[in-house]
Amino acid sequence: MLDLRSDNTAPVAPEVFAALARANEGHDTAYGADRWTGHLKSELAAVFETEDFDLVMAITGTGANALALSILCPAWGAVVCHPLAHVVQDECNAPLMFTGGASWLTVGDPFGRMSADDVAKGLEGYHFGSMHSAQPKVLLAAQASERGLVWSVEETKAFAAVAKRHGMMMMLDGARFGNALARTGASPAELSWKAGVDAMVLGMTKNGGMAAEMILLFGQARSAAAPYLRKRSGQVQSKGRYLSAQAIGALEGGKWLERAAHANAMATRLSEGLVRLGARLLYPVEANLVFAVLPPALQAKLAEHALFYPGYENGGTRLVTSWSTPPEAINQFLARAA
Amino acid sequence: MLDLRSDNTAPVAPEVFAALARANEGHDTAYGADRWTGHLKSELAAVFETEDFDLVMAITGTGANALALSILCPAWGAVVCHPLAHVVQDECNAPLMFTGGASWLTVGDPFGRMSADDVAKGLEGYHFGSMHSAQPKVLLAAQASERGLVWSVEETKAFAAVAKRHGMMMMLDGARFGNALARTGASPAELSWKAGVDAMVLGMTKNGGMAAEMILLFGQARSAAAPYLRKRSGQVQSKGRYLSAQAIGALEGGKWLERAAHANAMATRLSEGLVRLGARLLYPVEANLVFAVLPPALQAKLAEHALFYPGYENGGTRLVTSWSTPPEAINQFLARAA
Amino acid sequence: MLDLRSDNTAPVAPEVFAALARANEGHDTAYGADRWTGHLKSELAAVFETEDFDLVMAITGTGANALALSILCPAWGAVVCHPLAHVVQDECNAPLMFTGGASWLTVGDPFGRMSADDVAKGLEGYHFGSMHSAQPKVLLAAQASERGLVWSVEETKAFAAVAKRHGMMMMLDGARFGNALARTGASPAELSWKAGVDAMVLGMTKNGGMAAEMILLFGQARSAAAPYLRKRSGQVQSKGRYLSAQAIGALEGGKWLERAAHANAMATRLSEGLVRLGARLLYPVEANLVFAVLPPALQAKLAEHALFYPGYENGGTRLVTSWSTPPEAINQFLARAA
Amino acid sequence: MLDLRSDNTAPVAPEVFAALARANEGHDTAYGADRWTGHLKSELAAVFETEDFDLVMAITGTGANALALSILCPAWGAVVCHPLAHVVQDECNAPLMFTGGASWLTVGDPFGRMSADDVAKGLEGYHFGSMHSAQPKVLLAAQASERGLVWSVEETKAFAAVAKRHGMMMMLDGARFGNALARTGASPAELSWKAGVDAMVLGMTKNGGMAAEMILLFGQARSAAAPYLRKRSGQVQSKGRYLSAQAIGALEGGKWLERAAHANAMATRLSEGLVRLGARLLYPVEANLVFAVLPPALQAKLAEHALFYPGYENGGTRLVTSWSTPPEAINQFLARAA
Repeated sequence: MLDLRSDNTAPVAPEVFAALARANEGHDTAYGADRWTGHLKSELAAVFETEDFDLVMAITGTGANALALSILCPAWGAVVCHPLAHVVQDECNAPLMFTGGASWLTVGDPFGRMSADDVAKGLEGYHFGSMHSAQPKVLLAAQASERGLVWSVEETKAFAAVAKRHGMMMMLDGARFGNALARTGASPAELSWKAGVDAMVLGMTKNGGMAAEMILLFGQARSAAAPYLRKRSGQVQSKGRYLSAQAIGALEGGKWLERAAHANAMATRLSEGLVRLGARLLYPVEANLVFAVLPPALQAKLAEHALFYPGYENGGTRLVTSWSTPPEAINQFLARAA
Repeated sequence: MLDLRSDNTAPVAPEVFAALARANEGHDTAYGADRWTGHLKSELAAVFETEDFDLVMAITGTGANALALSILCPAWGAVVCHPLAHVVQDECNAPLMFTGGASWLTVGDPFGRMSADDVAKGLEGYHFGSMHSAQPKVLLAAQASERGLVWSVEETKAFAAVAKRHGMMMMLDGARFGNALARTGASPAELSWKAGVDAMVLGMTKNGGMAAEMILLFGQARSAAAPYLRKRSGQVQSKGRYLSAQAIGALEGGKWLERAAHANAMATRLSEGLVRLGARLLYPVEANLVFAVLPPALQAKLAEHALFYPGYENGGTRLVTSWSTPPEAINQFLARAA
Repeated sequence: MLDLRSDNTAPVAPEVFAALARANEGHDTAYGADRWTGHLKSELAAVFETEDFDLVMAITGTGANALALSILCPAWGAVVCHPLAHVVQDECNAPLMFTGGASWLTVGDPFGRMSADDVAKGLEGYHFGSMHSAQPKVLLAAQASERGLVWSVEETKAFAAVAKRHGMMMMLDGARFGNALARTGASPAELSWKAGVDAMVLGMTKNGGMAAEMILLFGQARSAAAPYLRKRSGQVQSKGRYLSAQAIGALEGGKWLERAAHANAMATRLSEGLVRLGARLLYPVEANLVFAVLPPALQAKLAEHALFYPGYENGGTRLVTSWSTPPEAINQFLARAA
Repeated sequence: MLDLRSDNTAPVAPEVFAALARANEGHDTAYGADRWTGHLKSELAAVFETEDFDLVMAITGTGANALALSILCPAWGAVVCHPLAHVVQDECNAPLMFTGGASWLTVGDPFGRMSADDVAKGLEGYHFGSMHSAQPKVLLAAQASERGLVWSVEETKAFAAVAKRHGMMMMLDGARFGNALARTGASPAELSWKAGVDAMVLGMTKNGGMAAEMILLFGQARSAAAPYLRKRSGQVQSKGRYLSAQAIGALEGGKWLERAAHANAMATRLSEGLVRLGARLLYPVEANLVFAVLPPALQAKLAEHALFYPGYENGGTRLVTSWSTPPEAINQFLARAA
């Protein structure tokens, strides 16, 4: 069976597993003072072309998002984001717990899109400075988004500009940041701090990792409180080397971008094939997620050969590819369905 | 250098790493509905001789303790434990965050000991039923304790009895439960639910794992809220199979008990040797931790050949052994120091 | 100047102030075990025609709403309500703080209306039972609403029915419950527990009180945890008699309903006069709030003689009457503006 | 019956009630922008001889303490205080809830005493800068203390000095600050900011008020976040004038100090009389609280004529006087008991 349920059902990529094996030698300092974590900081400095950042390791995507927000947003603050954002829909209130009660201020259309203009309009007339209203402190965009949309450098700059205008931090949920890079061709720096991003979660789990997420705090977002907030959140892996080793295995030689590009290509191939077979795409396919309305017969056929989740908004079916989706399985399925 | 800083500086045991490698085959369901987690539930039922329990996986020791307490203790409750407990001293307020503000009610002498009598005395005259006072809801004992002490079956029963008398849940922080089993020779069931324990953290990280902790909720402690509390805590590993695989690798064939027995034996050998060289033990060595006052010359000698932490109460130096402490390194060190 | 800014700008009604004076005699037990609070419990039993309820006193409206939600909703829960609800818009995240991180699930049109159908539709396809999604546990309706709308007994029953269907508690934010009673002519029991309401805030502050709110927990909503949750929330007035005395002063002889009826009548008179002068009402005037689009000349005229807040949605101006709005001032103003 | 249970069982003093009556005229702005609150700020500036402070009104003592701590202490912080402090013993975890999970670090002997040396010793070797340990951020002393002890200007300076040395804020729980002033003869400024106090709760409730507490934030403790933290805590009284009017009624003409001096004098007279009758004082009587071991016959006699609480540590009985304790009742009782 072809597994298109999520990029989380994929195994760990060989280069990541090999890094874990290499890290599994002898004793090393616990709690992130190990050699691998030191090396990772340098690697990230090279990848992001800056030394002006703090690295805060986290283990799970939910943990990383919630912890990052707890660093950026006070308990009396609000996080501006799309109503379909992962943090709103899929984390069972974790960000509210970690921040001590910050709330959402959702903007954008009901279908996964959010523009800088949507944000600006959503904040028009907002009671900034009134003690009765939670104060917007973070603008959060998922890159790529939960519906597989990717923001360009220009769009990112526009988000950051409206954030700045209102004294908010600009944060990316980058669980699929690799996919966004692969799609846009922009460099990590161009698509983050150079575009005005203050903080981001850089996820490796969905892109070939086992369980490894990084929070990057750029410039003004650097925080002396972060280590304490991280520890109290249960996101400090005592044998920290195995967390950093995963990231190094993925980053070294740019392997993570190859992996993401493969996932993107598989989604594109799949979506093009499905469209030829009568499917209607609900969103442009810009990363590794396909949302489509499938003709019933096609959906039934697909269900014989693949695992996936139906039931999304507007009658949509979700199909997710990953670093380990085999091209031949996609081809084979499309051939059978034809 | 012999590394005696912590059992967290040790690498992952071969059987655990092998299980990770076996788990790294093809796709599997995410979020804990995978084959490995199902298998783990059965394995634990066999190990603990009961089906009447819920398994809640966690990733870090702090996450596991805090999450377990959030299941057992309301925000207006208090957790009775020793002032030197890991939850109090070493988790940067995580349990307070996870419970929404439950507090500590510490009992016992200042030196790591806590008896059922201490608990009973500590609760004498407590304002049970008064809205002004946080209500004691959980009695928490570390097994083995932070100072390397192990509670016998009888002592555990006495703890549970005083807990019951006051309507409290009895919980074990079992980050080193394997060491306690290896020491007492009791079965996992005898040292837990059969002795009246309602809930426990069963840690594998310190005993050869990478990052894998289990919360076991027995009988009345089983909880329909646990999955939600876990998710919002950021402790759900999306690729859950790698969490369960670690535990299976450790549990299968009783390997974890061998590993713990080895660590215990190394601590005993080390402590006996140090005593012969003039050290004074601050606590009996019952698990894999040695707390001793070392003559300055001995301490200096030790520092040439080993890593460890001085600076504990009463002039104590802490030496921790693990599954990977080589016997010959202990022997060699003792020979050199003589 | 005629003050139409809020019912909070009004003074304390004479019968309430007199009750405070009567309470100010000699010593009395602190923390709610005083004679006045005992008397209030009986008074409420008579007013609500039941003994099957718990009374939890609170001081502020925000405190009362947030405390009530913390009794009814777990930290991993969601509260279903209108996006313009006071709890969402005007309490600076208090309910999120008090519940430990519960979230909102907003339903209804953007203009203050919410029907049982809106709730049912909003919950269609919701991921009940999935650990990734906050679980809806409370349906909250303001009676009267923030836009001055009143729910009939039938509408309340419909809300309660959809709440029950999904295992949720039905709660009323009754900061203006008196106004709703005065409007509908229903009895307190008919408009609350007899219609399926599980819990409500019964506010007296806006209706002639100084600072006095009551949480009523009916039947299944009664809670042994409530006193502790209240105390930790800082809502326990040590000299509790002065809290209960206010409520007694208002309730005795049904004075509160007269006061509310007066406020309602003033809003009706004002709105009718404004409509004659060219204003367009944005909502039907069912309680003591008028939302209207005023011709600029009329708005300017009004501003010469009255205090009020413009700037609401759809170009609306808000005018609030209270127990102390003088009829002659309304008449006079309308005459001048004509 | 002579009521010696608490200063909370006393009624509202005439000058405070009269101020409430004066405030009950016409309409006034809600939420603290009223004329009374403005006047109070000036009054406090005169009383404390400074303009460099923020005033944050609160309603209850628990609310005020918890809110003040939430302004001063991050969720990963610790508050250093005495184990018998009101915040630890009598507020059902409120400060933990308000701060989002800050913890206590208790110092001092078990009998209500705490010196700057105790604090210094308690912090010796503390893991400042380690992410595993909650970081001490506030030193909190009750003035007067829960056991009726008063800190002199010199002692206060010593506290503040040790706080500064460790980067902590120095805060006073001044629920009985008036009693401390009356005892020491120091000015409010001398006993607060001039001695290095950064923040304090200035309570009026126990000293003749109805429900009125003030948080004063001096100099570096001033906080732009305070209004939001206050609002989300449910401590904003919508008809704010009644909160400020109480304080003005008490402060005007120094009436609060007369009231406190009376309460102190009554405690002294009572304690001296009891000692003559065989009682043994557990603490020197420095404010309005007497803790004494009474001979059984005396205790029985006392119980015939007065209400009070036995059962304190070391067999102590607590007797609390207030602004309304009649001298003749004290004389009469002592005469009868003789």
